[in-house]
Parts: sequence; structure tokens; C-alpha cells
Amino acid sequence: MTSPSSVPDAAAAAADLHALFARLCACGATPAGGVTRLCASPEDGAARAVLAGFLREAGAAIRTDAVGNQFGIFSLAGAAGAPLVMLGSHLDSQPRAGRFDGTYGVAAAAAVGADLMRARRAGAAFDADLCVVNWTNEEGARFRPSLLGSGVYAGHHAAAAALECRDDAGTSLGEALSAIGALGTDAPPPLPACYLELHVEQGTRLEEAGATIGVVARNWGAAKIEVVFTGEQAHTGPTRMGRRRDALVAAAALITAVRALADDWPDRVHTSVGRLLVAPNSANVVPAEAVLSVEIRSGEDDLLAAATARAEAAIAAAAAGAGVAVDVRSRSLRPIRPLPGAVCDLAAACAEAEGLPSLRMDTVAGHDAISLLGLCPTGLIFVPSRDGVAHNEAEFTAEADLEAGLRVALRAAARLCRAGGDPVRALHRAGDPSGDPR
Amino acid sequence: MTSPSSVPDAAAAAADLHALFARLCACGATPAGGVTRLCASPEDGAARAVLAGFLREAGAAIRTDAVGNQFGIFSLAGAAGAPLVMLGSHLDSQPRAGRFDGTYGVAAAAAVGADLMRARRAGAAFDADLCVVNWTNEEGARFRPSLLGSGVYAGHHAAAAALECRDDAGTSLGEALSAIGALGTDAPPPLPACYLELHVEQGTRLEEAGATIGVVARNWGAAKIEVVFTGEQAHTGPTRMGRRRDALVAAAALITAVRALADDWPDRVHTSVGRLLVAPNSANVVPAEAVLSVEIRSGEDDLLAAATARAEAAIAAAAAGAGVAVDVRSRSLRPIRPLPGAVCDLAAACAEAEGLPSLRMDTVAGHDAISLLGLCPTGLIFVPSRDGVAHNEAEFTAEADLEAGLRVALRAAARLCRAGGDPVRALHRAGDPSGDPR
Repeated sequence: MTSPSSVPDAAAAAADLHALFARLCACGATPAGGVTRLCASPEDGAARAVLAGFLREAGAAIRTDAVGNQFGIFSLAGAAGAPLVMLGSHLDSQPRAGRFDGTYGVAAAAAVGADLMRARRAGAAFDADLCVVNWTNEEGARFRPSLLGSGVYAGHHAAAAALECRDDAGTSLGEALSAIGALGTDAPPPLPACYLELHVEQGTRLEEAGATIGVVARNWGAAKIEVVFTGEQAHTGPTRMGRRRDALVAAAALITAVRALADDWPDRVHTSVGRLLVAPNSANVVPAEAVLSVEIRSGEDDLLAAATARAEAAIAAAAAGAGVAVDVRSRSLRPIRPLPGAVCDLAAACAEAEGLPSLRMDTVAGHDAISLLGLCPTGLIFVPSRDGVAHNEAEFTAEADLEAGLRVALRAAARLCRAGGDPVRALHRAGDPSGDPR
Repeated sequence: MTSPSSVPDAAAAAADLHALFARLCACGATPAGGVTRLCASPEDGAARAVLAGFLREAGAAIRTDAVGNQFGIFSLAGAAGAPLVMLGSHLDSQPRAGRFDGTYGVAAAAAVGADLMRARRAGAAFDADLCVVNWTNEEGARFRPSLLGSGVYAGHHAAAAALECRDDAGTSLGEALSAIGALGTDAPPPLPACYLELHVEQGTRLEEAGATIGVVARNWGAAKIEVVFTGEQAHTGPTRMGRRRDALVAAAALITAVRALADDWPDRVHTSVGRLLVAPNSANVVPAEAVLSVEIRSGEDDLLAAATARAEAAIAAAAAGAGVAVDVRSRSLRPIRPLPGAVCDLAAACAEAEGLPSLRMDTVAGHDAISLLGLCPTGLIFVPSRDGVAHNEAEFTAEADLEAGLRVALRAAARLCRAGGDPVRALHRAGDPSGDPR
């Protein structure tokens, strides 16, 4: 444990974390104790303002890029062109979501930045700057695809195309960001020497293993398919059944088939249809259109391919069965990839130094860290989610676990900022008191 | 055919019909040639104003009751307390609907009223008044249940409860009517001596039989069930399949089962799920709630009962299969009933007098006339729908068929208004020139 007078000071960082987290959670708070803070909503705007205020107060320079990604840069190295260590996550949420998803990682990153800035002002020397980031539209709830802001930063999407993504009411991301004053003109910072993200697990592996820190070593793959069935609007009364071309009947067949897929590979393939739009959606009208978002996830390449092929066949079969037309509006594939070993080793070493049991594990969910994978050394650190509850207002992580994750991130960030952002150097200088002062 | 100088004057009535119909169709017109004129929307308000203007100009006194039903009363009898003959339908529409559904019946009723008023001014004698009606929320698209305005008039629903019905945005019927200035304070007229409704068939029976006039002798029964499945919001990634309680999986199973029911009784049972609301409806979230509107229709009591029982069993099975809770929010049953023979005979006699081939037939769809069934002699007259297309922007009825239906309604209304509204007297006085002047 760190004594209160230590520099960096984990206790001061924890106090910052809890205070900032509470203020962020108030933005879009729901009566049941969760949040609804959809991307680029007024609630998101309020949370962005809270974050920017904290970062500015703590000594960071704020930048907002063309898709609303918020960056707070702490000049720890004191030299132009110093390498960058980046820490962050996202402030947008699902509807009626938990408080921790994304927000914990952003608040912890901001607390780490403030603490290292205090350390620098107290005389500590760093040779990298630290950048706190809040990525736009990680959730993919209001605008699709998910991981949009980090994806633009990583070069996977053009900013102009991202700004044209529309919500179900037809509002574009650009319009929505502009309405909350979050459409920036700043250039984003260059790619960091290392990116770290702290997140709640959203599963039960840590609880089951009795571990406090999850060191994510690999991400599951995910195939996402947006399907549009087009039938024909008709009266549900006199129109003969044989003449109906019911888009919702096709959707139902596909939802059932997609769910059944997962049973062939228990716990190895996850499938879902989370979103379905029906038009005109009136009790007395045969549905003319159904739009579905299908997801297939697996940690095994061959299973992901096999399950996705079966889903594609089910799409065609559902359309044929209901006599409707089908169009696959988009397909995306997030491949299964390892996270860099050096960053994993650094995270595990920091957990060990804090006396915290850690576990190497997969992430099944996508995270902004995955957007940056392959572009720079990227790390993802989990803390336990009680009972694995996620995307639900009852999501919960104990205060002790929030602080444990913060201490690991603070330690890792301090070491990285003393090693030019290089995780290999940061790892090997663990025994060096100047590299790991605590 | 009627000569231009005849009183009543079918040619003048036809001119009124076409002109008024065109003006009504402009309210909520869609680019594809249909209308979207949801109940109590601004478009509905515009159509109500057009109708009221026409009726007032033609000499009717306008009343609007507490649920927005619009009545235009032509004092043909010239004596207080004269019996009433009522003609009408509805001006609200489904989303992206056809122009004819409801609007044709209202416009034709108004044209009949105007023509009989002209006849009275030209010296014709009547012993009943004529009331044109536009019923509120027939469609059940924006507010459920359907047939709401006529149902309140008939005493099936309390006005206060009807005004509390809410659309999917949470707006009540009362609020919506008030916003368009259609929330009236007038007492509705007393029950008529006879009610007649002219409507497009929305099926293919007339086309197949080569008939121009459908005399509706019976209505199919309809069971309507609103089902709510409640699961648990969760992450579609890490949440294990076995732990998910997916409300949309239950909905899909039910939609498939409801569709399959109809195949056991081809053309004798019609089934549908036209409306499905999913929450939170986000691609990355296991759906926590699904609300479905199930309909089962049949012209045979035993089949309707058997199919409804199987649907109820399917609701329970779908919930159990997905591990979700289920609540049936509402059940309603519209029984199979005959329409009064005297009104049918009168309509058929008027068709014959016009030289139009007619067909006794069922209505599968519900209509406002069905709300009044059993309370007063009630008639429902169909004209052909091209290819049976309904609840669709491509809905079409030829001008000649619109005029044919109008002539039958005009003749029937004239005879009723000369027979104190009594369909038996109106029928038996067919040979009497003063009863059937054309």
C-alpha cells in the first residue's frame, strides 16, 4: 500500500476517482441507480463538461477532435515532442445501463493524470506525457457502428463518414455533437507509445477465479450483420395468409435460428439479436420492413466462421420462408487477436507489486483498446463485475475493486511515463526505484 | 342513371364526393400517393377542418363530442325530435396507408348529406334527419384499441378512459385531440334509427365475383391479445447464453407459433403480429422487454376459440422457452355476428335499382359499423379494392366503383329519410315513387 505522502499518491488518486465518478454518474442518472447517457445527448454533454473541468483544473490541455473525442494532455515530460502514454475509455452508455461501463475507465484515467501531474509539480521526472481520453460512441447504442470515435482515431473510419451516421430519429452524429457543443476542430494527438484502458469485466471469470485484476491477453472475434427484410404492407384482417409477405415473420425465424446456433457450441459461441425495428409497426398492418442487428461472437476462429456461415444461411432461409426480400445492409468482422505480451506483462507485474491476484483472460466484449490494437502497444485491464451483470442498471463493482484497478493503472502509467512510454522498458525497470517509486 | 335535374341528384353528389375526397387526401398525403394521417395528428386536424367546412357550407350543424367524434346534422325533417339516419366512417389512417380506407365513407356520407339537403331545399319531404359522422381513432394505429370513437358512442368504453389511451410516445388521446382543437364539449346525437357505412372492401371477393357492391351480412370474429415478455437486460458479449433471459427470443417464438396456427385452417383463420416494441433495442444489449400485439381472426366460432386457445398456450410456451416472465396486458374478443337482414335487403335493393351486381359477404376487418351492431339497425356496404390491396399506399378503387357505392348509399339514405329511418319501411316502400324517386 502507498502511504499518503507517497508520490504518486494512490490515496489522493482514489479520492479524485470517487469524486469525479460520482459527478459523472449524476449525468443521466436513472431512478433505479443506473445511467442513460446516450452518445451526444444532453446528458453526454453534461458529463463531457464535468470531465473537461476536472482535467483543466488538474493542469491538462483539452483537445476535442472532429468526431468529439476528448483528450486531456498532461505535459509531464516538459519537452515538446515527448512520447505519449494514453489512458481512457468512454462516457457514453447504453439505455438504462450501469454506472461503471466506460465511466470507470475515464474517471480512473483522469485521476491518474491528475496524480502524475501533482507528482511532476512535486519534482518527479517523467520522459513521456500522459493523455486522458474519452472516446465518442463506444457503445453503438445511438449510432452504429460501436467503437466509432476510437475507430476514427485509429484510421478504421473516415471522420466525415462517422459524422454522417444517423440515429433512429434521423439525427446525424455530427448534428448531435454540434447540438451539445462537442464537435471539435482540434487535431487529435499522435498515436501514443502505449495505450491502456481500465474497464469493468462484465463477466464472471474474475469472481470465479477469485482474482481482482484481469489482464486481457486476447479478444474474442465478433461478426455483426445488419439485415433488412422487406415484405409488403397489408391489412391483417382480410388479406389472405397466402398473399402476405410479412417481414416480421422472417425476422422471427432468423432470431430463433440465431439463438439456436449458440447451443451447438455451448459457452464457445455467443449469439444475439439485440435490436429490431419494425415498420409500420401497427397492430392491424402486416409488417413491411424489419431491420435486425445480428451478432455472433467466439474466441475460436473456426467456430466464428462456421457460426457466421450458418447465420448467413439462416438469413436467406428466413427470407425465403416468409416470401420477403432481404438485404444485408452491413457486415463487420472483428478478428480474434492477442494483445501485446509486453503490456500484459507490465499490467501483471503492477498487479503483483500491489499484492493483487491477477488472471490472464479474454475479453468477449469489444472495447476502445481493441480499436487501437496493432497500431500501438495496447493494454486492457479488468476489475470484477458483481455477478457479471452488465448493460443493466444493477451493474456493480465494489469500491475496493475500483481502487485496486486504479492502483494498477497508476503504477503502470507512472512506469510508462518514466520509460518513454515503452512497455518493455517500463517492465524491465521494475526493480529500479526511479522507475517504480512505490 | 339519374338525370342532372333529378332530386336527389347523384351527379351533383358525385362531383361533391370527388372534390371533397381530393381535399381530404391532401391532408397527410405521402409522396407515393398514399396518406399518413394518424389519429389526432396535425394532418388529422387539417382533414377534420376540411370536413367541417364542407358540412357547414352544405347546411349541417356541427357537433364534436368529448372524444373528438365529429357529427354534421342535416335537418331534413324540419321537426324537433325527428329520427336520425347516420352515415359515416373515419378520417384517421394507418402509417403509409391508402387514401380510400375510411376517407371514402366519410366523403361519400358528406356528399349524400349535402345532396339530400339540396333536395329538401328544392321541396322534397323527409321525415328523418341525416347525420354525417367521422369517428375518432378507428384504426388503432396511434392509440389502441381500434374502433375507439365509435366504441365510446356505443357505450363500450367510457370517454374518460378513451382519453387516457396513450401512444408510444406517451401522449394521451385527450392531449393529442386538444392539441389539434378537436376535443369537443357537445353531446353526441342520440342513437340513430339506422346507421350505414360505405367502405372499400380491402379484399378480393368482389373482384373475384365480378360484383360492384358488397352487402356485408356478417363480421368475422377477432381475438386481440397484447403480450409483454420481461427478461433481463444484459451484455450480448460476455453474458453466457445460459444466463440470458432474452425477451426478443420469446417474442420470436410466439410470432412463429402464431403464424403457424393459420396453416392448420387455410383461409378460415387469419393470424398476425403487426406490432412489436423491443426495449432497450440496442445491438449490444440482450432485450429486456418485448411487447407484441397478436390478432386471431375467423368467421367460425369454434375455430376462433381453438386458434385463440392455441395462441394462449404458445404465449406461455414462448415465455418458458426463453426463461422470461410474461404478462397478458389485454385481451379483447370481437364476436362473430350477423348484420341485420332488413338493412342488408335495403342495400341489395338499392344496388339492384342502380343496376349494380351485388354480393352478400362477410367483413373480415373491423369497421365502426360493427361498434354499433346490436344497438341500432346497422349496414355496411363495400366497393371493390383493386387486387385487395389495403393498409398500403397502393390501395385503389376505380372512380366508377366509388360512384356506384355513392349512388347506392344516396338511394338508401333517401329512402330511409323518407321512412323515419326504418329500414323495413324503407325497403317495402321501394315501389312507391315518393319513397324511391329515382
